[in-house]
Amino acid sequence: MTKQELINQIQQKKSFLCIGLDVDLTKIPIHLLTEEDPIFEFNKQIIDATHQYAVAYKPNTAFYEAYGIKGWMALEKTINYINENYPEIFTIADAKRGDIGNTSTMYAKAFFEDLNFDSVTVAPYMGSDSVEPFLAFKNKTTILLALTSNKGGLDFQGLKTENEEVYKEVLKTALTWKNSENLMFVVGATKDEYFEEIRKIVPNHFLLVPGIGAQGGNLQDVCKYGLNKDCGLLINSSRGIIYAGKGKDFAIKAQLEALKLQQEMAQILSK
Amino acid sequence: MTKQELINQIQQKKSFLCIGLDVDLTKIPIHLLTEEDPIFEFNKQIIDATHQYAVAYKPNTAFYEAYGIKGWMALEKTINYINENYPEIFTIADAKRGDIGNTSTMYAKAFFEDLNFDSVTVAPYMGSDSVEPFLAFKNKTTILLALTSNKGGLDFQGLKTENEEVYKEVLKTALTWKNSENLMFVVGATKDEYFEEIRKIVPNHFLLVPGIGAQGGNLQDVCKYGLNKDCGLLINSSRGIIYAGKGKDFAIKAQLEALKLQQEMAQILSK
Repeated sequence: MTKQELINQIQQKKSFLCIGLDVDLTKIPIHLLTEEDPIFEFNKQIIDATHQYAVAYKPNTAFYEAYGIKGWMALEKTINYINENYPEIFTIADAKRGDIGNTSTMYAKAFFEDLNFDSVTVAPYMGSDSVEPFLAFKNKTTILLALTSNKGGLDFQGLKTENEEVYKEVLKTALTWKNSENLMFVVGATKDEYFEEIRKIVPNHFLLVPGIGAQGGNLQDVCKYGLNKDCGLLINSSRGIIYAGKGKDFAIKAQLEALKLQQEMAQILSK
Repeated sequence: MTKQELINQIQQKKSFLCIGLDVDLTKIPIHLLTEEDPIFEFNKQIIDATHQYAVAYKPNTAFYEAYGIKGWMALEKTINYINENYPEIFTIADAKRGDIGNTSTMYAKAFFEDLNFDSVTVAPYMGSDSVEPFLAFKNKTTILLALTSNKGGLDFQGLKTENEEVYKEVLKTALTWKNSENLMFVVGATKDEYFEEIRKIVPNHFLLVPGIGAQGGNLQDVCKYGLNKDCGLLINSSRGIIYAGKGKDFAIKAQLEALKLQQEMAQILSK
């Protein structure tokens, strides 16, 4: 998917909502556990109920790998289901990969070719040649971790170098890499005071913002500095939407939460 | 596996060789491609031929994920085969994972419980709470990226902070984490001039050293500063061993390469 197609979808749906499909079998409605593939069945119903309010889905690969082959099959079925039924949706493999060159190429093949995701999240620790193999894929997006929303996020990302904090060095350096126009950046929403400074470095790139809801971030605060002329934000919510209900009406409950966020977003976009 | 069991194995085999199982279908002998599971068949023959000279095997997950479900099944069969037939071997899932707390727990379950690896490699970029969920597993080892052997390794790892380079901050900070005795560190072999300084910070931990052979590192140089009283090194070779031959005798060729390295290691250990 191209950046322009994503922007078109945002304008059409008046939404920049990404829904995180972090499926934990101990948290999904009990009645689904008798299904042949409870994880996929859960995802399918969540997707069917929320796709009109969301522009992206983001399965976190950890939740699938934890269930071994069955988990990986559920991930494959989920991405195929989205691609077949809702091809306008931007898909994110939240995998946080990154390795030396030839190995990163294998990861890129896994997510961009074998599974056919539009994008994958990548960790920057190993530097240029660990990220550039992902960037080489046309019409695919590499979403680089910059500033994350967890408690330990600043342990190393926040270290002050001779010039500035590590996460700013990551942003600036990444812009010099080949095909850097294929980048987005992960910026945690619990750090809204940083968005203004980040936008000075990357005014035009999309930012994927986890941490709304369960992790404590606030939508208005993030948008104040994070929005750009293209919108430029994908705001993720996982648990707040997918676990809104625990009964047979879980998908309707999820739909209502997605709708609430979409309406808030529509209002922000109309300004 | 405990650290002491690994040390015992090193003393018994007079080897600290780790073999990287980075299986690429375009590089394995052609006659294996007609097998039902060429990746597993390749691994099985390599393992059978080399286990007496190696103390650890390290499949890199990227190479398995790139083949989707079939790849993941080959990975599962490979780890099961090692655990059943050579339980003394230390197994490393070279996965370079790392995510926020609850997600890292899912990755830890995937590799430590579902697949039953002894260890997994983890990237430090997201800080303490992205690594501690791995460290919480008893008799399992978390191998943290410190200094990597690739060209871009120093892009961020080598940034000078107010105190010292980022990779040294990673080493020092990691030592303060809960269950830090369950850590090993990845230190690239093309950077042998750094081993002396690294040993000042982590004198007692094992270091996993990729980059011997194809990536240009030298065994003697690494050992000069890297060895400690327990040996404290696992030296990885992947392509140099597993792709030593391309014909029906590929496993014998791999065995010879492994034996060569083991003999060099035995000599070093005897000093």
